Amino acid sequence: MVQVGTVALLGAGVIGAGWAGRFVLNGIDVVVYDPDPEARRKVHEALENADRAYRRLTLAPLHPRGTVRFADRVDEAVAGAEFVQESAPEGEALKREVLASASRIAGPNVIIASSTSGLLPSRLQAECRAPERVVVAHPFNPVYLLPLVELCAGEHTSDETVERAAAFYRSLGMHPLRVRHEIDGFIADRLMEALWREALHLVNDGVATADEIDQAVCYGPGLRWSCMGTFLIYRLAGGEAGMRHFMAQFGPALKLPWSRLEAPELTEALIDRIVEQSDAQARGASVRELERRRDDCLVGVLQALRNHDYAAGAVLARFEEGQYERLHDTVMSAHDDLSRPLRLHEAKVESDWVDYNGHMTESRYLHVFGDASDGLFRYVGIDADYRAAGFSYYTVETHMMNLREVAAEEPLYVTTQLLELGDKRMRLFHSLHHGRDDTQLATAEQMLIHVDTRAGRACPAQPAVLERLRRIAEVHAALPRPAYAGRHLGAPRS
Amino acid sequence: MVQVGTVALLGAGVIGAGWAGRFVLNGIDVVVYDPDPEARRKVHEALENADRAYRRLTLAPLHPRGTVRFADRVDEAVAGAEFVQESAPEGEALKREVLASASRIAGPNVIIASSTSGLLPSRLQAECRAPERVVVAHPFNPVYLLPLVELCAGEHTSDETVERAAAFYRSLGMHPLRVRHEIDGFIADRLMEALWREALHLVNDGVATADEIDQAVCYGPGLRWSCMGTFLIYRLAGGEAGMRHFMAQFGPALKLPWSRLEAPELTEALIDRIVEQSDAQARGASVRELERRRDDCLVGVLQALRNHDYAAGAVLARFEEGQYERLHDTVMSAHDDLSRPLRLHEAKVESDWVDYNGHMTESRYLHVFGDASDGLFRYVGIDADYRAAGFSYYTVETHMMNLREVAAEEPLYVTTQLLELGDKRMRLFHSLHHGRDDTQLATAEQMLIHVDTRAGRACPAQPAVLERLRRIAEVHAALPRPAYAGRHLGAPRS
Repeated sequence: MVQVGTVALLGAGVIGAGWAGRFVLNGIDVVVYDPDPEARRKVHEALENADRAYRRLTLAPLHPRGTVRFADRVDEAVAGAEFVQESAPEGEALKREVLASASRIAGPNVIIASSTSGLLPSRLQAECRAPERVVVAHPFNPVYLLPLVELCAGEHTSDETVERAAAFYRSLGMHPLRVRHEIDGFIADRLMEALWREALHLVNDGVATADEIDQAVCYGPGLRWSCMGTFLIYRLAGGEAGMRHFMAQFGPALKLPWSRLEAPELTEALIDRIVEQSDAQARGASVRELERRRDDCLVGVLQALRNHDYAAGAVLARFEEGQYERLHDTVMSAHDDLSRPLRLHEAKVESDWVDYNGHMTESRYLHVFGDASDGLFRYVGIDADYRAAGFSYYTVETHMMNLREVAAEEPLYVTTQLLELGDKRMRLFHSLHHGRDDTQLATAEQMLIHVDTRAGRACPAQPAVLERLRRIAEVHAALPRPAYAGRHLGAPRS
Repeated sequence: MVQVGTVALLGAGVIGAGWAGRFVLNGIDVVVYDPDPEARRKVHEALENADRAYRRLTLAPLHPRGTVRFADRVDEAVAGAEFVQESAPEGEALKREVLASASRIAGPNVIIASSTSGLLPSRLQAECRAPERVVVAHPFNPVYLLPLVELCAGEHTSDETVERAAAFYRSLGMHPLRVRHEIDGFIADRLMEALWREALHLVNDGVATADEIDQAVCYGPGLRWSCMGTFLIYRLAGGEAGMRHFMAQFGPALKLPWSRLEAPELTEALIDRIVEQSDAQARGASVRELERRRDDCLVGVLQALRNHDYAAGAVLARFEEGQYERLHDTVMSAHDDLSRPLRLHEAKVESDWVDYNGHMTESRYLHVFGDASDGLFRYVGIDADYRAAGFSYYTVETHMMNLREVAAEEPLYVTTQLLELGDKRMRLFHSLHHGRDDTQLATAEQMLIHVDTRAGRACPAQPAVLERLRRIAEVHAALPRPAYAGRHLGAPRS
């Protein structure tokens, strides 16, 4: 692999500054040249974004950050660099000049990569010294987050250069894609450009607005494109019969005026080639397996977007709110039977709750108990309005017993006994059970304090809530004391 | 809103069966007509997929599932239905016939929606009785997960039909997009079709394979399209100067041969329209705000895909593994200072660790303590090989004190004291602190048992691990006993 300590960045617009983030957060020092007087500020703002994104992206221990230095000329930036990344504005003449200048300073083994979105490497490298080390490495905005980098060799580029560049970018968490035939726009930009040009026609013709066109992407096909490309998606659209069926079924639509772009003639040879390449791509996975994989990814993506209440995630959030609204029915009524521990929460072991031992990880036991406490809160009338008024219960102490392991997808329920109630505090005892055979899996005894969240101190619960809790506490006082209540750690098990 | 108890599904291929999933999981009964003898099996397999996806998608309490019935004829399916969704194969003649048949049976207020990907509603409704209730409602595969549904009225369709259909689909967790001008391919399929036709040219010309083209989407631009469409993405590509700058900078590329599709002429009027629509779409958000929103979504999407080790998520997983490999250095050495509690774990409060009170939720305290235990395990030489050999420590009891709240993004660290060590068990005391001011936030006393994971019973730890733990325990025995060790719940605080 290429060991790189310092990279010269020629050009620090959106792409160049994004590269700065990618390199610096991977522990690589950068030297930046950009004649824009605002370049320093822009690079530092991009680094702030990149820092922020990486702090959220991973808990893995990253390299100590690389340093950033600014140079006043191309030669000053390139001298001493072990790798050069050019991201000058998209124009052949300018890029040729910058690359040629860099090639006169950089040693003959220093790779010089151009970030061009679609200019041909053979033309870009034409005036370079040692052109065999000049290659296109086309990234995608934001460069510090998106893994794709298209590598395209010119006629003079050596295979070794492409391989070394690929290994280097891979070490930075990127996905190098070798563009095997030199073509204007490479692969990704041809696809994006076709979509973009079609979109411009729609706006030009007054058919749809920019926002409507964006909605048509990000609430539908765009979600799929985050995990699968069009060929694999269409393989699944063909159902069990696969790609040949899809081409037979939807091939005729290629003759319909559904795009201003004319498709190639669907000859038998082209269909055979597509079917063969689609089969190779599926690597033996059945349509059902691929569907499940797609669905798992889509579920994850939708949930991630829900956490930010954005795009399709906002639709999911509104949908869930609608479902939860029906829960208002669950507030305690005068006729409820309180003579047993309450059963107010059910769940199942989510696939991402399982640790390297293959069982539900310990913190998720407490997660389920916390949800059970939320169920009790709803039951006694603590809702979003109550919290908005500045009141809440906080857990201050927990004693948890882990009795049995439980695997992914298993159903769970919790029973809850109120052991002790004061105006400002309550002591709960939760018991977690398997949903099918009632086996006891864990217990949690918890002390909760009622707080005035604005003042940040304990205060009595509001009367209506306290009244419902008192009715539960009175009946529960007659229940047997649970086996694991009142323990200190390591006491003999009953 | 449309109150719908039963939907007739005409056609149960990939799209029709996907609608079955969407409806049934929203508590709606469906009656299916499809002449395919395999239709029953296919619908039930799609329902299994939908069930599986919804169980993962949300913990919200869903409606009890609707029922599925199969009919032998169109009229039998439509009789009694309150909504009709047609998903016959994509051919105008066939769809016209099916829709006309349905319209003769369904009452005049029953909406009849066609799932066509791009045929014109005015032509589809031409032979229908009461054509004002016939509308295109074009969904995306998998219909039970993707929210987008394009609504397109024909010349006879009433506004009321479009509004009622939109409200109905919205109640199912979908995002209806009104296509305001009737056009072949509507909006989404025109965009997808342009990209698809360009991709077919690339395969036909031998430039790239299906798999390479898919990689060019799902490792790069496809990730962005999951949360933002092309117009908003390009607004950000223009940097601070916004859309006019982007059009000035990248407009000339529309003349380059980067797609086989010719762009419209970039007149001043078109540029003005794009800039105006882009500004409207941004709703006053600055480029930096939009960048942070985009980055948050991308981080979430990448993490979701990482959980499934798929596409760009697999790249992130390999990257993290590489970072964690450097942790092997952290195994205990003979020179380590053991005379204070160990400090083996740092973290920060992730944005999704925060509950409705605005503080780290209680289960995440235990999550951080669990990670601290993992840090201790690595330190004493328990690694993936050790676990693969069938050995592990399981937590059996925890006593946790929550002392202070902590907000999102705050830095944390944990110190760990070994209170007691046997061959088969150890008692730990973790203390959680704020990373900036060292405030104690929580403590956890835990009992762990060493287990033979295959036999499922306690066994002594392996000698090398036990030896390292003994060295720690000997030195830690001289440390003061922590204030909250050995408590039972509710005991007075020291």
